[in-house]
Amino acid sequence: MANPYNTGLDRNPANYQPLTPLGFLARTAANYPNATAIIHGELKISYQAFYNRSRQLASQLAKQGLGRGDTVSALLANTPAMLECHYGVPMAGAVLHSINTRLEAATIAYQLDHAEAKVMIVDQEFLSVALDALQIATVSPTLIVYRDPEWATSSEEGAATQYPDYEAFVAQGDPSFSWLMPDDEWDAISINYTSGTTGNPKGVVCHHRGAYLLALGNVFTADMPKYSVYLWTLPMFHCNGWCFPWTMSAICGTHVCLRQVREVPIWQALHEHKVTHLCGAPIVMDIILSGTHRVLPDKVAFFTAAAPPPERTLANMQQAGFEVTHLYGLAEVYGPAVVNEWHREWDDLPGDQQARLKARQGVRYLPLENLDVFAPATMMPVPADGKTLGEVMFRGNVVMKGYFKNPDATALAFEGGWFHSGDLAVKHPDGYIQLKDRSKDIIISGGENISSIEIEDVLYKHTAVAVAAVVACPDEKWGEVPYAFVECADGQNVSEDELKAWCSQHMAGFKVPKHVAFTAIPRTPTGKIQKFQLRNKVKP
Amino acid sequence: MANPYNTGLDRNPANYQPLTPLGFLARTAANYPNATAIIHGELKISYQAFYNRSRQLASQLAKQGLGRGDTVSALLANTPAMLECHYGVPMAGAVLHSINTRLEAATIAYQLDHAEAKVMIVDQEFLSVALDALQIATVSPTLIVYRDPEWATSSEEGAATQYPDYEAFVAQGDPSFSWLMPDDEWDAISINYTSGTTGNPKGVVCHHRGAYLLALGNVFTADMPKYSVYLWTLPMFHCNGWCFPWTMSAICGTHVCLRQVREVPIWQALHEHKVTHLCGAPIVMDIILSGTHRVLPDKVAFFTAAAPPPERTLANMQQAGFEVTHLYGLAEVYGPAVVNEWHREWDDLPGDQQARLKARQGVRYLPLENLDVFAPATMMPVPADGKTLGEVMFRGNVVMKGYFKNPDATALAFEGGWFHSGDLAVKHPDGYIQLKDRSKDIIISGGENISSIEIEDVLYKHTAVAVAAVVACPDEKWGEVPYAFVECADGQNVSEDELKAWCSQHMAGFKVPKHVAFTAIPRTPTGKIQKFQLRNKVKP
Repeated sequence: MANPYNTGLDRNPANYQPLTPLGFLARTAANYPNATAIIHGELKISYQAFYNRSRQLASQLAKQGLGRGDTVSALLANTPAMLECHYGVPMAGAVLHSINTRLEAATIAYQLDHAEAKVMIVDQEFLSVALDALQIATVSPTLIVYRDPEWATSSEEGAATQYPDYEAFVAQGDPSFSWLMPDDEWDAISINYTSGTTGNPKGVVCHHRGAYLLALGNVFTADMPKYSVYLWTLPMFHCNGWCFPWTMSAICGTHVCLRQVREVPIWQALHEHKVTHLCGAPIVMDIILSGTHRVLPDKVAFFTAAAPPPERTLANMQQAGFEVTHLYGLAEVYGPAVVNEWHREWDDLPGDQQARLKARQGVRYLPLENLDVFAPATMMPVPADGKTLGEVMFRGNVVMKGYFKNPDATALAFEGGWFHSGDLAVKHPDGYIQLKDRSKDIIISGGENISSIEIEDVLYKHTAVAVAAVVACPDEKWGEVPYAFVECADGQNVSEDELKAWCSQHMAGFKVPKHVAFTAIPRTPTGKIQKFQLRNKVKP
Repeated sequence: MANPYNTGLDRNPANYQPLTPLGFLARTAANYPNATAIIHGELKISYQAFYNRSRQLASQLAKQGLGRGDTVSALLANTPAMLECHYGVPMAGAVLHSINTRLEAATIAYQLDHAEAKVMIVDQEFLSVALDALQIATVSPTLIVYRDPEWATSSEEGAATQYPDYEAFVAQGDPSFSWLMPDDEWDAISINYTSGTTGNPKGVVCHHRGAYLLALGNVFTADMPKYSVYLWTLPMFHCNGWCFPWTMSAICGTHVCLRQVREVPIWQALHEHKVTHLCGAPIVMDIILSGTHRVLPDKVAFFTAAAPPPERTLANMQQAGFEVTHLYGLAEVYGPAVVNEWHREWDDLPGDQQARLKARQGVRYLPLENLDVFAPATMMPVPADGKTLGEVMFRGNVVMKGYFKNPDATALAFEGGWFHSGDLAVKHPDGYIQLKDRSKDIIISGGENISSIEIEDVLYKHTAVAVAAVVACPDEKWGEVPYAFVECADGQNVSEDELKAWCSQHMAGFKVPKHVAFTAIPRTPTGKIQKFQLRNKVKP
């Protein structure tokens, strides 16, 4: 028999509208027009102005002929212009392509071509590299230059004046422009390129539905009340700033922009603007804790990802008044989609136990429907024993549409109806997952899997080690053996034998690196260690 | 040219899952198995147990042959069983039909027949009326009786033992049952019947998508952090308890059940369980404030709807430690979908100004895409002048699927692509809407529209008036004139002339009631005033 609840009860415009985070801004601008949306140096932008400027930008893009499915590239620091792009670009129906400002010209050119950029908005600081990229690229996007008052006038000024000015461009726009809702919530809102530690970068396409849901998910993860104040220590070009450009509009929050992540301006902002939340890689915590020690009057929430926060850093952060939460994610899941949900009773544990619990990546975000660790061969979950390695897989509404113009990579990533992260992890008895390695970074020695991260963790605990990276080295007898590369801390010294002895004390013998080399470790422009270069070094 | 972002980037199980609030419970049970989900008298139910019991209920319903599109009716007080129904019923693919426990047998029978109930779960307190209803009804649902330990054994006991026991029924179920995700997020999750102040009740069908979104919307409206404690002073049969049964699972919150809304148990719960949030009609505030005056140690958030909170009540609630927020909605929009968003700076205003601002219904909920006041004839928004009357209309994802088996009423409700609320309101210059009347309650006198609510408001301000209801009375000269019905407050007395003089002081002459009658005012079993009965009384 037919389900009677499906008869004559169809979707119509009254009861079905595409989910999009753009509506958050419209709503808050209507309800709190005078609330401060953005602080940037001396500049304060109200929600009414933020909404109007976003619509002006959208109307100008539309005037340029841009519409649904066209790409607007942004090479911008954490500035009001970058926030406006997160609304103005999709309000024109277009797709926002944020570019990592640390990239070199060739990679930028590759992205511009692949994304078929129609317009490129560039901060004056990065104009020179942008022009170099445009020399290489096939596409010729319209170039618009953002001259940030917080950026000192420099030698670029002469070159910049020949390109349209962002402020002038926006000023010509229509502040009451009827912006475009997506045709469908599945429409693309952004494209972000992977950093390409392995070959060509892939264009991760995100949609309005996922951006809406992850933006709201952040509020749950971060327990963010209305009027929260968010400091931009995380680059907005990273996975759309983990969707926080949209989150803040949902709660009438304030963005505090920051061009450069340095100790003094961070502490200044924390005190002056009563910041409540900020995000960043562990390096940001080191920056915060460097220099004169300061203490916060009120608790501030810090969200970190990329690597487990070390115990000492955690303790120092706590002492300074920060509450640190560990997140995990990838561009393919809109930024963070896994959170180390903290149990109140864990507060009473000793510091080292807290650090061990906090090192785990955790559990699924509220808007992620499923997260598990699978044996890739069988697609069966690994036992929750904290030991068996498997691949982290995601399923849910905050997983990307797919890779742009790359059906093979897309099909591979979604094989079996789950997104394959390429990260290896164990599942603890309480269901929390913990990363052990990238699948390609695992070392198989005498049939045993060795996690390179596990060895690196031990090396990092040695006071003389500043940076450590371990890769598989081909070996006649064992197949592969661990090979460690180490950068020593300033003024510190340690020998190969000392480090091997150190490792022997802390791990099974077969895991101890057979070789230790002291050398500068190669990184991508985004700061990720390029293990493939190290692998090339150890090839026979 | 085709949009390149729509090519080869389709929905698949990895990146698209139906939105449903059921997943909130699964997630919190996995992450916080030992956290307290429900408190009911001496009983404490953990999230693991709550989830297991919901799955047991679902598995048992499935064993009875129930599945997608089947209706399970619940005639229950605010008990754990009612919370379990909000998960267990849809986990079997079925649709939850909550019945107002104050209804008489004939109306219950009508609903059971119309909804085609397959199973009926009844609290022992309401068994007698349920049996009466089943005598009248055509359908013969399987009857299951919930014997609440918090409900004293009564004379019903003998009759009850012949029907299956809810606890025994659940106990036979499978706690690891693989519950059914909806086939589509548009699938029905619940049906709630309107109170039928005008003719036959209509069955409002809600879907998983809307329930998910409104449940999350509550967290934004109520600024609810993780671990919030919610006291059930609002009947769960009202619009699924405004979706709070689902909201609390999203934030690992605790439900404090309450069979009866009385002063002492409310204050007991507030203190003993450190309640943070509760909801209810203005009458609940009166109950809270009655008797010995008590003060809360911490701020507690109270959400009220149905009528604007009077100034005196607001002041007393604030003094006792409550923060009152005014909401507005209907069953057709999942409960509350409009909120009187409060601006921080309004805290500094004098009490009467605060009350005036708080009396306005406000602005759209975060997950409601659009709210406006239209001139129904033209479907054009009325000017935001605080004066021009129009009909409140809703558009968005928290609007119902439609009325069950009632295509005509559904089409009428959604005419022009907006949901027509039937409520008349003005829009203030800041965009906040304020209700003035139900469209059928407006009085048209000499061509002027008179709001019956406006007159009632003035009457309520007179200390001798306990209840006031104004309707249109046919009049040879004016077409219609206002006719007021009044119940006097205990021990108070007032004459018709005195009340007319009172009105003359506070409104334009043409609005002053031409007649005032002192009489008991008829109400529906849910407590709504039946104006159609009063209208019948004044017919010539």
